[in-house]
Amino acid sequence: MSTNCDELELRVRRRLDSLTKPQGSLGRLEDVVVQLALAQNTEMPSVGRKGLYVFCADHGVTEEGISAYPRAVTAQMLKGFLAGRAAINVLCERLAIETCIVDVGVDAPWCPDSVNRKIAHGTRNFAKECAMTSDEAERALAVGAEIAEAAANQFDIAGLGEMGIGNTTAAAALLAAFTGSDPVETVGAGAGSDASQIRHKADVIRRALALHKPQLWHGKGILAAVAGFEIAALTGFIIRSYELKFPVVLDGFPCGSAALAAQAIQPGCLRYVFYGHRSAEKGHKLMLDKLGANPLLDLGMRLGEGTGAALAIGIIESAVSLYRQMPTFEEASVDRSSI
Amino acid sequence: MSTNCDELELRVRRRLDSLTKPQGSLGRLEDVVVQLALAQNTEMPSVGRKGLYVFCADHGVTEEGISAYPRAVTAQMLKGFLAGRAAINVLCERLAIETCIVDVGVDAPWCPDSVNRKIAHGTRNFAKECAMTSDEAERALAVGAEIAEAAANQFDIAGLGEMGIGNTTAAAALLAAFTGSDPVETVGAGAGSDASQIRHKADVIRRALALHKPQLWHGKGILAAVAGFEIAALTGFIIRSYELKFPVVLDGFPCGSAALAAQAIQPGCLRYVFYGHRSAEKGHKLMLDKLGANPLLDLGMRLGEGTGAALAIGIIESAVSLYRQMPTFEEASVDRSSI
Repeated sequence: MSTNCDELELRVRRRLDSLTKPQGSLGRLEDVVVQLALAQNTEMPSVGRKGLYVFCADHGVTEEGISAYPRAVTAQMLKGFLAGRAAINVLCERLAIETCIVDVGVDAPWCPDSVNRKIAHGTRNFAKECAMTSDEAERALAVGAEIAEAAANQFDIAGLGEMGIGNTTAAAALLAAFTGSDPVETVGAGAGSDASQIRHKADVIRRALALHKPQLWHGKGILAAVAGFEIAALTGFIIRSYELKFPVVLDGFPCGSAALAAQAIQPGCLRYVFYGHRSAEKGHKLMLDKLGANPLLDLGMRLGEGTGAALAIGIIESAVSLYRQMPTFEEASVDRSSI
Repeated sequence: MSTNCDELELRVRRRLDSLTKPQGSLGRLEDVVVQLALAQNTEMPSVGRKGLYVFCADHGVTEEGISAYPRAVTAQMLKGFLAGRAAINVLCERLAIETCIVDVGVDAPWCPDSVNRKIAHGTRNFAKECAMTSDEAERALAVGAEIAEAAANQFDIAGLGEMGIGNTTAAAALLAAFTGSDPVETVGAGAGSDASQIRHKADVIRRALALHKPQLWHGKGILAAVAGFEIAALTGFIIRSYELKFPVVLDGFPCGSAALAAQAIQPGCLRYVFYGHRSAEKGHKLMLDKLGANPLLDLGMRLGEGTGAALAIGIIESAVSLYRQMPTFEEASVDRSSI
């Protein structure tokens, strides 16, 4: 398996070097092509059919007043996605990416046109009890796996995004649990918290991690303790995508927390994951360091929804176009020594 | 004038804040919109019609053996651009950007379909004499200004790129002249020089700057001494674009050297310039620091042709789409306090 990978990488790098350009001059775009080729297990990767999945859910921990926005906004935003009026819709329309909105646990009646995989009307308040039972965590992981299978049948690549008021708090809790860092290092402003709210967020997380300590020794235990349904579903999506050789592009901070969980549950499954965007959310740097990731874009965004992933798919598509469409020295009948 | 600008910026920022998203959450994309609005002098900027100009010329200093590629490659690449087979063609086709290839001084017969503004068959060897006469420098600046006028009539935004074997040496010489840095700090690998070639490049530049010292006290003198025709034309394009309120997006290292010259000749003219891409070329960091610039993309490319500018135009277009298409709180009938 690893030998095949090495050989495939060699073949792709050889083709990159045969294109009429100075060797290596496409920089990271060349690495993108290699990574995509390995993810899709083919020398000629393609991204013609592109999807973007927004997993939505509510968070019980909003009871603790950790968010700048009321919980009802999750359902409002989901309606906005379905009406095609949100930022992610604008970007996906422009970049010819199909969107799919998955309700894994929004605290509102199911909306037609969203995919109904509602596990509950939001998680429980992880400051007081586990966010989900282990059964619920398994179901959320399975939802992600199932959606990944549908995505792999329909698309060549998928971006992942999320919406859930309170989910930067859940993501910061996961980051603290997976790195052992103090929550003060992992929390940030989310959608617009001020300094005292941020301190409060850190306190809530610190107390929660103490409360749930007995089950924080394994990935699924951590997920059940403090994640959200959308984060657990993203985790399941990432793991299954690896098995299916289907490339995924992650958005920012909550998606990154799902990657941490995926890595804990199935080590090695992040090998071909693309990191779309370096978020302005404070804890993202620590998270990316832990993941060993260097996102394609760094535009200071902190909107979520998959917006950073969508923009990154545009860059990946450009890389693939160059790889597929530039002539080789042979095709161009140019003497390699002279160019 | 500056008051009008301030007021326009306020209006654009107010509209950005009225869109249904957390304030500031689009990060640098919001700054892009403001900058474009100021460049175009309108509250509703647009980038529907996009052009990319590749200025091509040869460099006498190639006699000194400073390039990894022979001089003839400039003409070969120009033919490739016209045949639609180069990297820049692939990107511009994908991003719906029209290309325009301008021959300002390629050492080969003029090729139909390129814009013929050939000033000479390459500059003179600046290691021995000035690269151009002051009359030639003025003519190259005028070519850029004239092409900028045509561009402003045809497009909403233009990317700028270049092709010219030897032009990273010219750009490094300009950077050294404009910053007073030793050439060893400003040279890099270009299209593929090794360590000893890079040292040689620095030596050639150091001697040239000593030779031309008497005329290095003003922008046009520096241009005539060590620039290329394509770099001088880019300089003229940048200056005229500012006067025309026409936004330009620069590619990497040679384009940046034109920006330094433009700033010296007409201070303030870079106010609305977009820097597309942080090049892997070593001197680019120093150059960007001098320009106070933070490019939109950082993908490790070092291909030139305008490839970084083209990709950045894609990002700028996404920013504008979000600004123009996202609903405001009022349009969405959403209570601002609840979202």
